[in-house]
Amino acid sequence: MPQTNRQVRLAARPLGLPRPTDWEFTSEPVRMPGPGEFLVEVSYLSIDPAMRGWMNAGVSYIPPVEIGAVMRAGGTGRVAVSEHPGFAVGDYVYGTFGVQECAISDGRGVLKLDTSLAAQTTYLGALGMTGLTAYFALLDTGKAKEGDTVVISGAAGAVGSVAGQIAKIKGCRVIGIAGGAEKCRLVTEEFGFDAAIDYRLPHLRRKLREMAPRGVDVYFDNVGGEILDDVLACLARGARVIICGAISQYNETEVRGPANYMMLLVARASMTGMLVFDYADRYPEAMAELAGWYRAGRLVSRETVIPGTVEDFPETLLKLFDGANTGKLILEL
Amino acid sequence: MPQTNRQVRLAARPLGLPRPTDWEFTSEPVRMPGPGEFLVEVSYLSIDPAMRGWMNAGVSYIPPVEIGAVMRAGGTGRVAVSEHPGFAVGDYVYGTFGVQECAISDGRGVLKLDTSLAAQTTYLGALGMTGLTAYFALLDTGKAKEGDTVVISGAAGAVGSVAGQIAKIKGCRVIGIAGGAEKCRLVTEEFGFDAAIDYRLPHLRRKLREMAPRGVDVYFDNVGGEILDDVLACLARGARVIICGAISQYNETEVRGPANYMMLLVARASMTGMLVFDYADRYPEAMAELAGWYRAGRLVSRETVIPGTVEDFPETLLKLFDGANTGKLILEL
Repeated sequence: MPQTNRQVRLAARPLGLPRPTDWEFTSEPVRMPGPGEFLVEVSYLSIDPAMRGWMNAGVSYIPPVEIGAVMRAGGTGRVAVSEHPGFAVGDYVYGTFGVQECAISDGRGVLKLDTSLAAQTTYLGALGMTGLTAYFALLDTGKAKEGDTVVISGAAGAVGSVAGQIAKIKGCRVIGIAGGAEKCRLVTEEFGFDAAIDYRLPHLRRKLREMAPRGVDVYFDNVGGEILDDVLACLARGARVIICGAISQYNETEVRGPANYMMLLVARASMTGMLVFDYADRYPEAMAELAGWYRAGRLVSRETVIPGTVEDFPETLLKLFDGANTGKLILEL
Repeated sequence: MPQTNRQVRLAARPLGLPRPTDWEFTSEPVRMPGPGEFLVEVSYLSIDPAMRGWMNAGVSYIPPVEIGAVMRAGGTGRVAVSEHPGFAVGDYVYGTFGVQECAISDGRGVLKLDTSLAAQTTYLGALGMTGLTAYFALLDTGKAKEGDTVVISGAAGAVGSVAGQIAKIKGCRVIGIAGGAEKCRLVTEEFGFDAAIDYRLPHLRRKLREMAPRGVDVYFDNVGGEILDDVLACLARGARVIICGAISQYNETEVRGPANYMMLLVARASMTGMLVFDYADRYPEAMAELAGWYRAGRLVSRETVIPGTVEDFPETLLKLFDGANTGKLILEL
């Protein structure tokens, strides 16, 4: 049992990329769980692009992290002490435990993990919120169906790589967009997309037109910016654009809106935002399907695990925005 | 029977606002209709913001008007000579007759008008494509329903003024956005909206928040630009944004994309483009409903009729873009 709990707190709201001065490292004595509570020792922290949004002030889909508060983060860990009838010492769990070594929980929003099926880290990847986001965004918001041409940006990333695999399983033709030759290789060879386009090379729009001559039926957008405009120019009639993220814009002080949005009219298309939390009552069915594909070897979960301590969180977060990360980025404590 | 047919043809593709040199005036002898054809003397031309888009090169929902071709336009008129079994001399008709005094038609896409119910001009307004656009956009694309807060831009314009009245009939709370005090007065007093906001005054977004404290359920966008961004910032959860037009952008060489589009994610909202032509098989049911409301005095059709000749078309078109027009703009020949 640890005696102290080291934590990372938000010290200031960043402008642009978070800087070291936007964080504060603290530590406090570990308190024992009360009745109906348990103590989790956090093993792995989920490092997500959405975290950047949580650092901003103002109204969003979730309240911002307050200045001085422990930074919000999903994570997995082991129950170390329990006064909760539903959670036993030794259980592995997922929850929004925050960027800290230990967390007290009352069990709300906490899921137990079957570590005989997959490693803890996979429950932050394909079998976690990442996989659930890809699943509901693609199939519910995007209504992807057999025969559709599906384009996915951030295709080598956590959500994109799972979305592409699900689209393949559902019988779609899948084109990934990623940055650099190595990521594009990964997208086709490891994740099994039909094709990949390197957005760092010129003529993205022309290549997309060549690869999707009848237009794009579903666009799964994780990046925003210029790539969104390029894909909007290539929509098929009745296309569905899923707004899942906009990583290219999260550190911009002026967001670039999609100048080609009138293609929605030309193509009678829709652009719809989604949040996985809205599907909480359907997590079990989706998890069952994802786990089935995983078990059958049809779904690969790629995790990039960085060993470290909570103090390595600020630097690890920046890896999301420098274009080097592939798959799910995880900080191992 | 006229002997010559005066026409307006597209001479050049405009950059920005169309200039006199973008048009060419021609005249040719009137030819007699062949078997299965009839000759229409055009009485009224529908002057539409969409015309600006038809003048541009490139892929859209409809082929561009070719250089040298008669400018595309909807219009109404009287059948003067007929070799068509379905159309008799004296019938009043609507069709895409073009900016010219006479047109030969084979009847495809031509509707007969009941001039005992309403004037020809009303069939270019509330009982024409304008009314049908408002109807399907609001009810089908936007899924407006009783109790919704509906915001409509271009509220004093042709489509917006009808959309707001339909929304009121359906039991929505309706806020119009228009330019200037006189238009705002018209929106509330003549068209019966619950409230109007003058976008030329400051603090549009703040006013909208005050008037729609629980957020905007349906936004019917006819204008694009800054107003679209302001309304996106005020969406209620699950909101539907209807992309019907973007008149503020049609003469811009660089379109302003909606920088607030990530509010679609925050609000789990959708933004969907619509084109009335897709609903052709449902025109009769919608027309019956619109005509019923019109007959009962529940639907006002406002038409601004400019008397002139086809040569007045270029100048009349510009009236759409200077902010002075209200209701349906029509050129009377």
